[in-house]
Order: sequence, then structure tokens, then C-alpha cells
Amino acid sequence: MKLHAVIMAGGSGTRFWPLSRAGRAKQFLDIVSSKSMIQEAVERILPLVPPERISTIADREKTEVIRRHLPGLPGKNLWIEPLARNTAPCLMLATAKIYLEDPETVVAVLTSDHLITQKEKFLKKLRAAADAASRSLDFVTFGIPPTFPSTGYGYIHFSRETPVVHSGEEFYPVREFKEKPKFEQAVEFLGSGDYFWNSGMFVWRADAFARKLEKHAPGLFPFWGRLLKVLKEDDKRGLLEIFREIPSISIDYALMEKARGVLVEEGDFGWSDVGAWSSLFDIWPRDERGNALKGDAILLDSENCLVYNPGKLTALVGTKDLIVVETEDALLVCRKDLDQKVRDIVESLKKGGKSDFL
Amino acid sequence: MKLHAVIMAGGSGTRFWPLSRAGRAKQFLDIVSSKSMIQEAVERILPLVPPERISTIADREKTEVIRRHLPGLPGKNLWIEPLARNTAPCLMLATAKIYLEDPETVVAVLTSDHLITQKEKFLKKLRAAADAASRSLDFVTFGIPPTFPSTGYGYIHFSRETPVVHSGEEFYPVREFKEKPKFEQAVEFLGSGDYFWNSGMFVWRADAFARKLEKHAPGLFPFWGRLLKVLKEDDKRGLLEIFREIPSISIDYALMEKARGVLVEEGDFGWSDVGAWSSLFDIWPRDERGNALKGDAILLDSENCLVYNPGKLTALVGTKDLIVVETEDALLVCRKDLDQKVRDIVESLKKGGKSDFL
Repeated sequence: MKLHAVIMAGGSGTRFWPLSRAGRAKQFLDIVSSKSMIQEAVERILPLVPPERISTIADREKTEVIRRHLPGLPGKNLWIEPLARNTAPCLMLATAKIYLEDPETVVAVLTSDHLITQKEKFLKKLRAAADAASRSLDFVTFGIPPTFPSTGYGYIHFSRETPVVHSGEEFYPVREFKEKPKFEQAVEFLGSGDYFWNSGMFVWRADAFARKLEKHAPGLFPFWGRLLKVLKEDDKRGLLEIFREIPSISIDYALMEKARGVLVEEGDFGWSDVGAWSSLFDIWPRDERGNALKGDAILLDSENCLVYNPGKLTALVGTKDLIVVETEDALLVCRKDLDQKVRDIVESLKKGGKSDFL
Repeated sequence: MKLHAVIMAGGSGTRFWPLSRAGRAKQFLDIVSSKSMIQEAVERILPLVPPERISTIADREKTEVIRRHLPGLPGKNLWIEPLARNTAPCLMLATAKIYLEDPETVVAVLTSDHLITQKEKFLKKLRAAADAASRSLDFVTFGIPPTFPSTGYGYIHFSRETPVVHSGEEFYPVREFKEKPKFEQAVEFLGSGDYFWNSGMFVWRADAFARKLEKHAPGLFPFWGRLLKVLKEDDKRGLLEIFREIPSISIDYALMEKARGVLVEEGDFGWSDVGAWSSLFDIWPRDERGNALKGDAILLDSENCLVYNPGKLTALVGTKDLIVVETEDALLVCRKDLDQKVRDIVESLKKGGKSDFL
């Protein structure tokens, strides 16, 4: 079985402002370790996938940053989306490239800006998923066991009763993909035990992807043939034209929600989407008063504060539940429970024309 | 009448850390205007005193900083205390220098790190005080009308019934200088109406100072004659010896509390000692939600915050009653009502050997 990993690296992550910027998206930040998230994403799969079969996909600008973060990947594996057209066209391009080399290759679509703490377990599950995908035309996805009724994730409804087993791992037939629910619905999902969070990671054989596209995505399938053609001919202009015309649509909506024959494997390997500053409270080590610090700090009577300020001394006096982030040109002080509003800061900067800070 | 102003500039002001440092005491900070406090202290008296008769007194290190802040003062007017020996020896040295030029000169001892908002009123009162001091051997001091029962200031008990009038201003005989009181006592002082806060500003004729020293300070007076001698001979080594031997004692304790013939003039000219960060809430302009800002800032749901961060963008989200101060190498986030604890930070830095931040 040949396995090719595609690491999607097109996200922006404005919720980590002021650390995240237009040219420094979340996947390039060293917020979960001393390495950037995309470096972690690649390193964790190296025991399973050689660098020659690891690709990234992002726009041209981000790809330049990726090149600096991942010098170990062959330059030809840093794939560029000519235009941002959401995940379906992006993954059609990636899968088409792999299909042209060998249609039976298993494609593992992975994220560049999520945390996985149990790396060995993840690799074991990924290996099993690839095995499962290689043996059939089924798609495999990872479902995260939900821990609270989140309204921020999509859910996967599955059948617990009739699992398929590959490489000793259970795979459950997917009943339905659900978009981000209302709170009451999320509570129901959590209570039923038959729902996972959608992790955004998928595994499929390249030829199976083409067949599912043909069967379930009539609006997209015509572009598949055109893609193969322009890639074979290395026709960059033709590729750009395809991206100008192709519908902008997510892979979930275009394919996953419609496809029969999708299996879900439990992603109980310490996954976190690291969605905003406060999520780091669960990731960074904390002192006995609940403070999580990156950088030198003196704390007086301070509790449950998160400080990112490497290279400078930070002193907190009498502060509680605060997020404090300093960069070269900006400083954020934010109440822990309001960290979603950091996006509003970015919006406000856009409106105010303060593009230096974006 | 000849008037010579002596601006005491030896204070350190650790309560404005991280802006205030060993080499950048409070009087050198631009916290009340775009100028430093010592620049303000000199500029406000220029209509009354020419630069040739304005002197500063501080240690050697601070005097180098003063030179940069006050290029308009003659270099010979930047006087250096050979050793820190509290205010009495410091003012003996200053007054002796003036005495040697002309014993009848009126000496106005002023502070370098206090705010005076009503400058014209201050000048009028200072002129009257100098007039009063020139016509008698009385000392004149400014008493600040107290606005709350502070336990952080010394008090002046005075007789309201029998004021002396000079230049249209009333001068009250001082009954007693009181050290920082307990709270209950401070409440009494405030209620009686016969107490002012001690501003630390004094006016005396040089010869009157010598006579009061002779009469009331037997432990200090022998050094007066020695001072005149070493100054006449420009004997720097002799001056250092005097400072090695002279008792370290405050002018309040050595002279003011004991001297008869001290008058107090009401210092109702918008005085503030600008004691700590939170005092700037009353000085800086505030927005409609009570925020006071120096530097570019975006505020979401934030109230009663003070930000000093020139040159950087600061974003506050959901914060209340916070002081946020950033400098090149340090950041302070402090609850407004705990700003006195900033001194503890400085202590903690000392103990931790982090002298770079002192």
C-alpha cells in the first residue's frame, strides 16, 4: 500500500492575533511547542510516511512560509492552490496529482494547525485507516469523541453496532454528517453517544475519490477530467482557469455529506483544534495557581492567567483570568472568556485601515 | 530681592516600574505631559526665576540625566550630592552655595516630580512666599489642602486665626509638623480644617537658614561652617568627608519640626505628588468609559483602564480597572487598586538578581 499525506495549510487563524498575522497564520506559530504547528504536523507522521510522499497545499504566499518551516520536504511537494476555492477544489487538485502517479495510492488529508498529544496512538490509527481505505473504495474519517456540547464543530452521526475491523481497529459506518448544531442539539448529540466531532481529517484511495466525485458531485466532476489534463500537460494557465470556474465549496458539503461508504474511526488521540488563546490553558503547563506562561514573568496575587511574551519580562499584579500576549508591534490583554472577540479586533483593524497590524 | 530655586531631583520612584528604573527615576518620565516632570518643574518657574538662578541637586548619576533633560540650565548649576544623606545635608549644601554668593538670597526648595496644574496661581503664591521670606527670618512652606484622610503624607498643623499677609496672600503660623498619621488621626486632621499636607516645598533666606540651623540643629550646625569652608576652597575631598560624617536626617525632622517662625501658605494650585500609576487616572484625559491612554489602542468592552504603551498597538478586550504599562524590555499588568504593590515587583527583581530590569 502506497500512502501519500496531504497537509492542508491554507488557514489563517485570526483568533491568535496579535501573534497570528496575514503572513503568519496559526499553523506557523510555536504555540503548542517550541516548533511550529505545521512542523509538528509533519514530524508526527514521519514514522509512517517518508518526506517524498508528504505534500502541503496552500496559496503561493503561505507556501513561501511553508518552504522555510519544512526544509526537509522536496520543493516539488509544496503544492499551490491558484485561487482560494474552499476545500473541495483544493483536495481535487491534491488527489488528482497523486492519482496521476498511481490511482491506487491512499491519500491521507491532514490538518496543519491542530494538536495531537498521543502521537503513537494517532499513527496506529492512521495506519489502520490507510489500510481500511486501501482495501475498499470506502472513505475513512477521524471522529473526535466530544467532551462538551460544542456549537463550533461539525458532528458525525455513526452506527456503533456494526463496526468493521481493520488492523485491529474498529471503523463505524457513518450515518450522516451534521453541520455546526444549535446548543440544544449539541446536548442531544453528546448524550446519545452516537456522535463524534468532525476532525477535518480524511483518508481515501485516489481512484475511490474520483468515483465518489463522479457519483455524488455532478457539479464538480467535469473539472476532475480537466484537472488531470492540465496537470499532465503542466499547463499552469489552464489550472488557473479551472480554479476561476470551479464552484467554491467545502469537501464536507460536496462529498462527505452525500457519499455512502464512509467509515469513521475514533480519534481518541488527544486532539485539539487549538481554536483560540484560551485553548492553550489546557495545553501549556500551569503553575499551582493556574497560570500558564511563555516568557519570563513575576506574578503577584495572580490566577489563571496566560502570558505569551517571550524575550521580555512580564509582571502581573492582582490579575485573574486574563490572556496577555505581546508581539513586536502589538499587545493584547483579553479576558479569558472573551477570547473569541479577538476576531473583532482584527475586523476593527481592517475597517480602520491599520493593515500593518493584520 | 534675589530668588534662587533649588530643585531636588534625587528621588527614585520605583512605583512607576517598569517605566521608572535606576537610571530613569520618576522626575525623568513623561507621564504627566509630553515633557519630563523635571522639565515641567523648571519651565513652570521660568517666568519668575531666570535659568542662572535655578539649580538642581542630585547624585552624580542622576545629574548626568538632568544635564540631558535641562540643557537650558548652566552646567555649574547642576549640583551633586557626594553621598545620599537625606534632605537636611542636601539642603545645607545647596543653601551654603547660595549663601556664599549672597546671604540675603531667598532660597526656594522645590520638588522635581510633582504635578502643579494651576501654574499661574502657583507662581503668584511662590512670589508672595519669596516676598514673605525676604522680609523676615521666617521660613515659608506650602501646605496642600487635604482632600482625603491620607496616611501617606506628613501634615502641617497651623493657626487659621492670625494670618500674616504678604503680597495679598495669607500666611498662617505653623503650630506643628506631624509625621504620617494613622488613619483615625488623619480623619481628625481632615475634619478640623487646621491641617495641610506637607508639600516638601520650602522657602527661606540663606542667612535665616543658617541662624535656624544654629539655634535648632546643634548636631548639624558644626558642618555648616565646614561646608562654607570647603566650598570656598573648592575642596571636593573635604566635601566628601563632610558627607561621610554628617548625620543622615530629613529637613522636616532636623529643622522644620523644631523651628519657630515657620509660616504656611495654602498650596491650592492643583498639586499632586503623582505617587503611583493610578494617580494618572486623575491627570490624563479619559474616554467616556473611563479609560486613560498613552499610545494607540483598540478597546472592546473595557472600562477604567490605564495604558502606557507609546509606539505600539494595544488591544484590550473585556478588561476593567487595569493598569497596563509596556516598555522596551518589560510589561506590567496590574489591578488599579494594587498599584502600590509595584514596589514589591522591584523588590522581587532585586532579590532575584534581575538587575537588568531595575
